[in-house]
Amino acid sequence: MNSYTAIRGCFFDFIDDPWKHLGNDRAAARFERDGLLVIEDGIIRDFGPYADLAEKYSGVPLTHIRDRMILPGFIDGHIHFPQTRVLGAHGAQLLDWLQTSIFPEEEKYADRDYAEEAAEHFFNALLAGGTTTCQAFTTSSPVSTEAFFEEAARRQMRVIAGLTGIDKFAPPDTLISADDFYRESKRLIEQYHRCGRNLYAITPRFAVGCTEEMLTYAAQLKREHEDCWINTHISENPTEVRAARTEFPECSDYTAVHEKHGLLGAKFTAGHGIWLSNDEFRRFSQAGAALAFCPMSNLFLGSGLFRLGRALDPEHPVRLALGSDMGAGNAFSLIRVLDEAYKVGLCNNTMLDGSVNPLQQDLAEAERNKLNPYRAFYLATLGGARALYLDDLLGNFQPGKEADFVALDWTAGQQAISWRQSLTTKTGSPATIDEAAELLFGIMALSDDRSVAETWIAGQCAYRKESTDTAREAAYPLPLAAPQETFVNPQHSPASAKL
Amino acid sequence: MNSYTAIRGCFFDFIDDPWKHLGNDRAAARFERDGLLVIEDGIIRDFGPYADLAEKYSGVPLTHIRDRMILPGFIDGHIHFPQTRVLGAHGAQLLDWLQTSIFPEEEKYADRDYAEEAAEHFFNALLAGGTTTCQAFTTSSPVSTEAFFEEAARRQMRVIAGLTGIDKFAPPDTLISADDFYRESKRLIEQYHRCGRNLYAITPRFAVGCTEEMLTYAAQLKREHEDCWINTHISENPTEVRAARTEFPECSDYTAVHEKHGLLGAKFTAGHGIWLSNDEFRRFSQAGAALAFCPMSNLFLGSGLFRLGRALDPEHPVRLALGSDMGAGNAFSLIRVLDEAYKVGLCNNTMLDGSVNPLQQDLAEAERNKLNPYRAFYLATLGGARALYLDDLLGNFQPGKEADFVALDWTAGQQAISWRQSLTTKTGSPATIDEAAELLFGIMALSDDRSVAETWIAGQCAYRKESTDTAREAAYPLPLAAPQETFVNPQHSPASAKL
Repeated sequence: MNSYTAIRGCFFDFIDDPWKHLGNDRAAARFERDGLLVIEDGIIRDFGPYADLAEKYSGVPLTHIRDRMILPGFIDGHIHFPQTRVLGAHGAQLLDWLQTSIFPEEEKYADRDYAEEAAEHFFNALLAGGTTTCQAFTTSSPVSTEAFFEEAARRQMRVIAGLTGIDKFAPPDTLISADDFYRESKRLIEQYHRCGRNLYAITPRFAVGCTEEMLTYAAQLKREHEDCWINTHISENPTEVRAARTEFPECSDYTAVHEKHGLLGAKFTAGHGIWLSNDEFRRFSQAGAALAFCPMSNLFLGSGLFRLGRALDPEHPVRLALGSDMGAGNAFSLIRVLDEAYKVGLCNNTMLDGSVNPLQQDLAEAERNKLNPYRAFYLATLGGARALYLDDLLGNFQPGKEADFVALDWTAGQQAISWRQSLTTKTGSPATIDEAAELLFGIMALSDDRSVAETWIAGQCAYRKESTDTAREAAYPLPLAAPQETFVNPQHSPASAKL
Repeated sequence: MNSYTAIRGCFFDFIDDPWKHLGNDRAAARFERDGLLVIEDGIIRDFGPYADLAEKYSGVPLTHIRDRMILPGFIDGHIHFPQTRVLGAHGAQLLDWLQTSIFPEEEKYADRDYAEEAAEHFFNALLAGGTTTCQAFTTSSPVSTEAFFEEAARRQMRVIAGLTGIDKFAPPDTLISADDFYRESKRLIEQYHRCGRNLYAITPRFAVGCTEEMLTYAAQLKREHEDCWINTHISENPTEVRAARTEFPECSDYTAVHEKHGLLGAKFTAGHGIWLSNDEFRRFSQAGAALAFCPMSNLFLGSGLFRLGRALDPEHPVRLALGSDMGAGNAFSLIRVLDEAYKVGLCNNTMLDGSVNPLQQDLAEAERNKLNPYRAFYLATLGGARALYLDDLLGNFQPGKEADFVALDWTAGQQAISWRQSLTTKTGSPATIDEAAELLFGIMALSDDRSVAETWIAGQCAYRKESTDTAREAAYPLPLAAPQETFVNPQHSPASAKL
């Protein structure tokens, strides 16, 4: 076991979908107050209570991560690499926002230097937010896709991305012809798919921006490269939905556009789905297709409130990933996305409890809309992995999976968080799974990227925010020391000790 | 001019309401790229371009605040002091949330030690968020009101608060009898109102929690102490609205309850108002009464989307303050509140543009819902001061007003913010009012309390977050130094120089 390393600490992950355990959500989670994670070459080889495993792995180099909760790395199912610099751009709903703020910026990514600089910023921001895997849109320029995959490979990160096809509804320099999209996608698939941890998604941007020919090529690419993913958008904004109906008059709804072209199925993800009908949710479910729920973006662009509880109808649940949808989502942090997801769920809950309109009462759906910490962090980890068909590789601490994880500091964040969290754990660390979950809720309600103390990729620390003890004791008029951030070089490993 | 001090820096404030300058919102704002603020004993004595004033005030001790934008201190029109430790509590809409999470915590504030500890946490968190004035609810125990005013006085802060009356709909220990409410309010008014910078608000918590007798006493207190404020809640949640109708069957709507008791008028503020009718908005406007718009709370409890554009109908605009409504609002930072206000406004915009339902199209109202940086920071400063009838004292840098202000670092916040802001200002500081506004939008979209570098109260620095240059240059794999926080003792003044 010479190539083994081990992590000791307090672990929290999921073994099932909490929505399948209504009223007993904790049954879907797993808490190891003092656990051991054993890793070989980036792969988890063993996981369990430290007391049970310590003897078996004596001699293995050990890193003890104290005073943190260790969770599987966060999975962002929908993010736009070339919007890194314009995230949170002011002023408009989807279609105007694209034309005014987004397309002009994305055009810059045809320049390799710019794309490479952006890739550094992008992955730094991902890691600082605790996101270890994302499914990303690039641009219509192959250069941006290359820069993306090359930076991901340098950081050994598991990512999904692909050349982003749009051949109408954008300025000329944003467009790519359907022919070029097909040819370049094919070249990029051959160059990057399954190269290291890179995975390729055939990426028609959204139906309103794609001709019939572009969508047909996308389907052809999928037939020729069945192992690839497909990534797109659907039903984000009411005006966009109407445009899709106008552009595809032969299709009965937006989902039918993807069905017609043979795209809807396993390993297909569409962002948003706010305005999908109940029937469309059913067809997504039956096809094994996924939606990326992007509440921060949906609020930021005023797109609407995703019907979370309806999408999770137990009769035909849709696979759901969380998406930051950065730059329409105005933060990289999936912790901030969880905060907004909670809010969208509560707003839906009110609309469905009968207090506004008794005709719309559906108490079961209302309840499914409510995120608790189990449901929330499931979506950010194992749920996202399942939606993206990555759960053979990622999502929890099962042996055989890849060792990507985050160490969360439940006292970091806004000024008030330490005193708040001290209500839950006076001893300084969670004693039970319910205490751990309550601290996690405190993180998603009160914090953001600040709670991410460390982010590990394939068994190595890729990001660390140093903090001092005094940072946690914010009492007037004491001076406060505050966190520092370090991006760790891939080969740099943290202070270690032998078991 | 021996008692004078001066601040040199880049200033941004408001002289009018941006909604009165549709399409030219900047006309309501004022930008001094290199300005001088002259202060005597906490009061602004002069303000203008540094070049114009420097000679006149030569010899006055000067603090030069570099690389920051200085704005009037933020005004929080609706916040709950005794919810400091339970902010962002999990799981329910308003009425259940009160019973489960809030009332049990508030009962602790009858204990003076606990209330005093809480007051330290509360004001630390306010200052770290850049809030210099708040209108706060306390509890039904006079102890909490005393602890609040005493800590505010120690920090020389301009605050409004009052004993919070509730005599039904709560556990016994949360209640106060109407008689005791009247007697204790009267005592506290005499003890604290206009004592230093403390102001008193007669505070019937919300109609559903108040008997007829309690509301009658509130009106009597207002008659006997006309100079006092009134602070309450209205129409936050649909179930609460129905309860108000049941409890006051003789009133045609929720607003009529306050009209009936003679409470609605100048210096009256009610939090929320989500479910108010158009007619109720009109009556608020005519009475000169204010609403506190609390978008973060309204989303967190799923209460609904405040109809911002309707409340601001130019025919009968309602006075609006922003409120964090911490703890239902899950952050102290009004910057975070602005982010949520923007999102609520954009969601309203979509519902009113005709794309969802042509019958609901109202393009003028849709447009009024959209926050830009001018509208947003107006609400957080001068708008709030006007709503609370404090604009003779606060809200901008007019001579004669009190010198409470914040210095904002537009590059502090999430990892991605520096590169984002560099799109607006490549020279490192804003050159025009539009650049300044665009940086402010970057702050509200991407940041939070982290952008508050310094908070000044009555001409003295009360909070400072130290940052190093390297904190602004977040390039992989450079190590990052990060901010430190310091709460400055009231008598401690920052490093100064002579002009």
